[in-house]
Amino acid sequence: MSDMTSNGAAKYGETRIETDSLGEVAVPADAHWGAQTQRSIVNFPIGGEKMPPALVRALGIQKLSAARANIKLGVLDARLGEAIVQAAREVIDGTLADQFPLVVWQTGSGTQSNMNANEVIASRANEILTGHRGGKDPVHPNDHCNMGQSSNDTFPTAMHIAAAHEAIANLIPALGKLHGALDDKAREFADIVKIGRTHLQDATPMTLGQEFSGYAKQIEYGIARVQATLPRVLELAQGGTAVGTGINAKVGFAEEFASQVAAETGHAFVTAPNKFEALAAHDAMVEISGALNVLAVSLMKIANDIRLLGSGPRSGLGELSLPANEPGSSIMPGKVNPTQCEAMTMVCAQVIGNHMTVTVAGTHGHLELNVFKPVMIYNVLQSIKLIGDASHAFTDNCVVGIEANEDRINQLLNESLMLVTALNPHIGYDNAAKIAKKAHAEGTTLKAAALELGLLTEEQFAQWVVPADMIKPRA
Amino acid sequence: MSDMTSNGAAKYGETRIETDSLGEVAVPADAHWGAQTQRSIVNFPIGGEKMPPALVRALGIQKLSAARANIKLGVLDARLGEAIVQAAREVIDGTLADQFPLVVWQTGSGTQSNMNANEVIASRANEILTGHRGGKDPVHPNDHCNMGQSSNDTFPTAMHIAAAHEAIANLIPALGKLHGALDDKAREFADIVKIGRTHLQDATPMTLGQEFSGYAKQIEYGIARVQATLPRVLELAQGGTAVGTGINAKVGFAEEFASQVAAETGHAFVTAPNKFEALAAHDAMVEISGALNVLAVSLMKIANDIRLLGSGPRSGLGELSLPANEPGSSIMPGKVNPTQCEAMTMVCAQVIGNHMTVTVAGTHGHLELNVFKPVMIYNVLQSIKLIGDASHAFTDNCVVGIEANEDRINQLLNESLMLVTALNPHIGYDNAAKIAKKAHAEGTTLKAAALELGLLTEEQFAQWVVPADMIKPRA
Amino acid sequence: MSDMTSNGAAKYGETRIETDSLGEVAVPADAHWGAQTQRSIVNFPIGGEKMPPALVRALGIQKLSAARANIKLGVLDARLGEAIVQAAREVIDGTLADQFPLVVWQTGSGTQSNMNANEVIASRANEILTGHRGGKDPVHPNDHCNMGQSSNDTFPTAMHIAAAHEAIANLIPALGKLHGALDDKAREFADIVKIGRTHLQDATPMTLGQEFSGYAKQIEYGIARVQATLPRVLELAQGGTAVGTGINAKVGFAEEFASQVAAETGHAFVTAPNKFEALAAHDAMVEISGALNVLAVSLMKIANDIRLLGSGPRSGLGELSLPANEPGSSIMPGKVNPTQCEAMTMVCAQVIGNHMTVTVAGTHGHLELNVFKPVMIYNVLQSIKLIGDASHAFTDNCVVGIEANEDRINQLLNESLMLVTALNPHIGYDNAAKIAKKAHAEGTTLKAAALELGLLTEEQFAQWVVPADMIKPRA
Amino acid sequence: MSDMTSNGAAKYGETRIETDSLGEVAVPADAHWGAQTQRSIVNFPIGGEKMPPALVRALGIQKLSAARANIKLGVLDARLGEAIVQAAREVIDGTLADQFPLVVWQTGSGTQSNMNANEVIASRANEILTGHRGGKDPVHPNDHCNMGQSSNDTFPTAMHIAAAHEAIANLIPALGKLHGALDDKAREFADIVKIGRTHLQDATPMTLGQEFSGYAKQIEYGIARVQATLPRVLELAQGGTAVGTGINAKVGFAEEFASQVAAETGHAFVTAPNKFEALAAHDAMVEISGALNVLAVSLMKIANDIRLLGSGPRSGLGELSLPANEPGSSIMPGKVNPTQCEAMTMVCAQVIGNHMTVTVAGTHGHLELNVFKPVMIYNVLQSIKLIGDASHAFTDNCVVGIEANEDRINQLLNESLMLVTALNPHIGYDNAAKIAKKAHAEGTTLKAAALELGLLTEEQFAQWVVPADMIKPRA
Repeated sequence: MSDMTSNGAAKYGETRIETDSLGEVAVPADAHWGAQTQRSIVNFPIGGEKMPPALVRALGIQKLSAARANIKLGVLDARLGEAIVQAAREVIDGTLADQFPLVVWQTGSGTQSNMNANEVIASRANEILTGHRGGKDPVHPNDHCNMGQSSNDTFPTAMHIAAAHEAIANLIPALGKLHGALDDKAREFADIVKIGRTHLQDATPMTLGQEFSGYAKQIEYGIARVQATLPRVLELAQGGTAVGTGINAKVGFAEEFASQVAAETGHAFVTAPNKFEALAAHDAMVEISGALNVLAVSLMKIANDIRLLGSGPRSGLGELSLPANEPGSSIMPGKVNPTQCEAMTMVCAQVIGNHMTVTVAGTHGHLELNVFKPVMIYNVLQSIKLIGDASHAFTDNCVVGIEANEDRINQLLNESLMLVTALNPHIGYDNAAKIAKKAHAEGTTLKAAALELGLLTEEQFAQWVVPADMIKPRA
Repeated sequence: MSDMTSNGAAKYGETRIETDSLGEVAVPADAHWGAQTQRSIVNFPIGGEKMPPALVRALGIQKLSAARANIKLGVLDARLGEAIVQAAREVIDGTLADQFPLVVWQTGSGTQSNMNANEVIASRANEILTGHRGGKDPVHPNDHCNMGQSSNDTFPTAMHIAAAHEAIANLIPALGKLHGALDDKAREFADIVKIGRTHLQDATPMTLGQEFSGYAKQIEYGIARVQATLPRVLELAQGGTAVGTGINAKVGFAEEFASQVAAETGHAFVTAPNKFEALAAHDAMVEISGALNVLAVSLMKIANDIRLLGSGPRSGLGELSLPANEPGSSIMPGKVNPTQCEAMTMVCAQVIGNHMTVTVAGTHGHLELNVFKPVMIYNVLQSIKLIGDASHAFTDNCVVGIEANEDRINQLLNESLMLVTALNPHIGYDNAAKIAKKAHAEGTTLKAAALELGLLTEEQFAQWVVPADMIKPRA
Repeated sequence: MSDMTSNGAAKYGETRIETDSLGEVAVPADAHWGAQTQRSIVNFPIGGEKMPPALVRALGIQKLSAARANIKLGVLDARLGEAIVQAAREVIDGTLADQFPLVVWQTGSGTQSNMNANEVIASRANEILTGHRGGKDPVHPNDHCNMGQSSNDTFPTAMHIAAAHEAIANLIPALGKLHGALDDKAREFADIVKIGRTHLQDATPMTLGQEFSGYAKQIEYGIARVQATLPRVLELAQGGTAVGTGINAKVGFAEEFASQVAAETGHAFVTAPNKFEALAAHDAMVEISGALNVLAVSLMKIANDIRLLGSGPRSGLGELSLPANEPGSSIMPGKVNPTQCEAMTMVCAQVIGNHMTVTVAGTHGHLELNVFKPVMIYNVLQSIKLIGDASHAFTDNCVVGIEANEDRINQLLNESLMLVTALNPHIGYDNAAKIAKKAHAEGTTLKAAALELGLLTEEQFAQWVVPADMIKPRA
Repeated sequence: MSDMTSNGAAKYGETRIETDSLGEVAVPADAHWGAQTQRSIVNFPIGGEKMPPALVRALGIQKLSAARANIKLGVLDARLGEAIVQAAREVIDGTLADQFPLVVWQTGSGTQSNMNANEVIASRANEILTGHRGGKDPVHPNDHCNMGQSSNDTFPTAMHIAAAHEAIANLIPALGKLHGALDDKAREFADIVKIGRTHLQDATPMTLGQEFSGYAKQIEYGIARVQATLPRVLELAQGGTAVGTGINAKVGFAEEFASQVAAETGHAFVTAPNKFEALAAHDAMVEISGALNVLAVSLMKIANDIRLLGSGPRSGLGELSLPANEPGSSIMPGKVNPTQCEAMTMVCAQVIGNHMTVTVAGTHGHLELNVFKPVMIYNVLQSIKLIGDASHAFTDNCVVGIEANEDRINQLLNESLMLVTALNPHIGYDNAAKIAKKAHAEGTTLKAAALELGLLTEEQFAQWVVPADMIKPRA
């Protein structure tokens, strides 16, 4: 037991003895977890990033569904099975959250977190059945909770359950809300004609609503991109057991299990058609991470544009006013900053880096098992949560409160030299260029320059250069 | 003209004078390109990476389709238009390839390459019509070749045409061929039972065919992933002109243009429903790059596995023999190396980095225009070409010639301790573990250890531990 | 106050009213933090990643040092200043850790965490001086705790203090320990001659000690790489105030402050020679992240090699035995996995991704301020901690316990065909190749093949092919 | 020979027969290369990226130096050796450039390019000595050109020679020139007081010279960062031969070789103290790539800032005028765009992605050899060349021509509300904030708001709010 002393819980306080195939281990008396969880606590004092709650919840769904499938297939005693189901439900509900102490940086198969779930559920089931927590009787962590399962199919199953659920239930609704808010702004600003900018240089006019419609479209496509990855994320590895062959699982278990998960979650989970791929590669994680990466790129663009349009108040573009949520500076009184844009763009930088982590992890699988499972799901779930949360905050605390500064917008529009583009069809590109260059060099207006060059009449200028006519194709 | 002297072609040899809105420029007399192309040559002596041929070809398709649409809409004189079509056809066919001298590192809108296409096609059209190359009469680079267009919608249109075409016409067939070869091997090896390996440690048995079926499935999904991105890659920005509003394009041009491109290429191109998104963001490039990134991850895994299984010949795993295509070492005689795996994995590393370039470029758009267009399409096209070419070479020079070393495979299978897993359902996990640990510690066989521990009989062992029965779920 | 109700602490339980330049805010009565911290809690319900403890500690050091410098320069009343020093000391010691509730995803300047520190230290100083917590009298969060400071110089100063301290005090010693353990193994294994492998194919012999010496050298260089970045990490932005000019700081404050930090920490901090660079760019963070990235690459290689050499026990390379710390499989009894290698390589994948986050964040600064400060330091500190912790665990639970399987090593060495390389200087490369190819094709030994080909005598073979002579240059 | 037919040169035209250890190969009669180069052409029809000229040149330096060292050590006949030196000199000078047809995507050890060099140099040496090109007599590609060498030490040696030389001779001078130009602008603009901007919001004043001094400092540090990596890049693997032991090299060869390279190049190359690290890992490539990555981050910031400050001409910040090098738009007449900034930022995106490629490649080494050598050096050399070339173009065509628009700068300065910061020491942060908020809300001046609030007198305002006094610490 001396090797356990670096764990305070085991060293001090009441302990009980649990065993695994390597021998005895003292665990805190009031813990549900057993020997293997305790070994992991001791052997991996690395960082502090716990296995994400969404993954623990998914392990609960996985154990519950496996027990139900095994009962149905007649291989698991119903009394034990129902106790497992009840205990697993508590994992799903979060009431056993403090029983999952392990960090991400453990065995790369997630075996220790799978055993953590097996041990906690067995202990709790035993407590339900006997009044005593811990131990392996009557419910055994391996023989019953892990019946017909291996960490190698269980953990990736939980990864897919967690990723799909968080994407469907949390991320997409958050993006939908942001899309709605941007779309509302596109409508609200539909009649505000402003100067467009390309290369950060003045260009031809457009409406502020058109500008926001582009942002809304980016988010609409972002949702479609996440959805396009789901067919493969909704495939479950369960039933592959150790190496993908399904050894020790009952024939039919994979299919029945997937049905149970689909019923429990309401999402269209199916059993993976090829379990070898499902254990050895986690390309589906790289794929959904790629969709999150595109969202990060889109949101970076949108948030960056909004702070640029809101720059000022007097020395920037100043076309938008963003909500003033906090004092902006500890030294400059009265300063208000685009803080929601900043939080959002930081989230985007994180998601892009997380995608690289998931990608690198995906390349390093060996033969029948990729052993970067915990780090892959940790990053995918962090990215999903960050984009989802940030979309809510950005919508609520920024987008809905954006106001157009119409005076400023009008002033910039009317001063612009690029209105000259309207003259191309009438006097040709080269003549139009002469007007713009003259006006720029002399600090004068387009009309003055045009007339002085004798290229058109005042009436023609008035007829041809109408910003509100320049925001659509010509008839 | 003195500022042009750093360009040898202009300094030495015959030149003619071309003009643009900044003034006169001397260009090589025999060149079709004009003033703006020449300025770009002089101003951007950076690297040596030319605009990719697939992009130049797509610019040809774009100019051809635009001319046809403008003729059809009645805004372009048919005689001039047909000359443009004929010249553009030569760009498509590659006969004008040496007229596109510009590098990737130019203006970020690709304006200079768009003007390069306009200038070359106008010159060639003028040559067709008048016998003289160059100039702007009767065909003008801007007023006719670029009619109703802007670089800002033209260049992203060419990006999408090039990326979609290369993906559909070259990449997917190459992947299909590799998939077929892997699938063939899965069938060929369907009856070879071997040891599986998880965590690089011996695990339960499987067939070599099952192992290859996982690789085949990864490629099958990889194709699906590329296809899942196409709906957005098949959208064309054309018709948005300068800022997305369509200013100066004829009503109907966007739709007619997309029809022309679809007819010309045979791919299901459509006009983008929102042109603001199509100019200001290149999320579709980030998205398809993400699908290429997953392919790189998959191919890295497959190629890495194959060289691991082929390691040896005597001190490695040695389960596969790979084709010996070249002498492997300049110092170790007789050495043969998995060179196709190495070329493939280097390609994968490149594609992963290219994806990061595309991602970073995608985040840095400003307002109405992302000005990282050339670098984005350069990387996407390089990734597509590298994966496609490497898939052909890997298939032809490696996969089809892989042979199973059945003696070696059998030897490793029969020595393995993980066959003990078959005993779980009969004697329980803990007892089975005792057998494996005893055999490992004493360097003996599982049967000997089992019998010595008295946990089962010789008959039971013979009945229960049958590798060929361990490659599927239990009945 | 209604906008505060989404924060439970403010809604339920006792509150007091604090104010900032935007108005009144209710904060929990027992909290030291004030209005701006509370606003941040409410406005940024994103993720759950708190500002790292090492950064909060650094803010304590920063406030303590600023107070001391201002006292010394005669601009801060000593009684107030000493109370600030005492309160800041409690921040450094961690006794006020629960007073820093803010997440990473806030304003990009870290203003809210700087204000969190100002508010908590002012509150605690006021409590020390008056017995009442909170408020702005006699110690004001801005006027006293933030005297002569801006978030814009304070937060990057804390970033540099935290990164340099964690690198020097935690990371480098952890790497030094790992280096020592690898170097010890290099000595322990110095006389074990084994087969080398290149391209994963058998190559010429070497000692196991030589192999480990390469790993040790990688870590030695890794330490040097971190140290090479420190000159720029040890530069402090403090004194630049809002935009780098030093407005409102006292002349001499920057230099005196840096001296105070150096004295407090024992590290060679200096004031940054150019404060504009120090606020607007965080290249030094990208730089140190780059050194961490190289470490991740090195450690990935080392951990990967060790699990490859330890693969087996019977169907892998099997040259090393790694410590068996946990049961390896929930389904395969007796399996032991290279779990420390797996945790380490997952950490490496994370660090590589974090580096990309830091890089992307570094590119997106605008003019006088980079507003990705929190995400940059969060990732740098996570990478430092993960590599440090994992180096300890990997050393303690893996490296020190590695044993060489000499029987297996000898067997593989003696079977190898690449010993033929020793014949190059005697019979030439082409003849040597013939021997190796013949032995491989016929499954025989090199000696038999050589003799049969008549290329040398038995005596010559015995004299020339001596593995122990093949591990160094020839005399 | 039939397997060679996919190579046009071998199929059509005159050929001669060359041999290697796998048999005979037809090569073009006029080529210097031999069998192994020809096999690589046929087996790797992937992409079109040739091995970079700087690497080919470095192989010339390597072969020349190896021949000299072997002559000096008495193991290479001087007549043959001198012919090798003469032929290698032609490789260095580039006159044999067309003899290096191989692509990056070949064997991962670079063996085929090493053999390409051996074959070409042997052929040319034989031609010098006998009048006939090709063959192995009297100079043999392996036995003489590759004497005491392996691709495994030769190729990484060439990688380090190429990277160090390009960094020292091309990159650092280009950066030095850019630094000088930025520093000149800092001096030129030293007296132009302007508004600073943080969070893209108006902040306190600074000089334009101060702003540029930050850019100059970034480049100064960037040079230092590259230099800080050189100690490890200047280490040469040569002498390690196949696996790092130095088998078949003469004692003293490694040291003599490094001296020869140092003498030939003028750079401080030394022999690597640990050859196992030098073959198996390419951490030094990841390290220098990391320094290039920081440069990309710095240059992205600088180029982005400059285009932001130059945005307009009428609807942007408009503080700077950038040189007008090309017409900016094919549709908007008179438009001029910040094209040099765009080329530079595209280069930066490429370098960041290249760094990821190098990083991923670095993680995937196996045991005694990293087999991602060609892709690593290809990316490092591309990044070096792109940054170097772009620095020249950016300096020449943008930085030196930047002009300050002083009228615009003054106008924005005087309108700014953040001048209120100067009042903090006089009336406190909270009062100052009241003034700024009142002026902002009412669209009035700070002075008007201050007086109306009765917080100070007109005289005090005139005395305290002086922009030119706000650009440094207070006395």
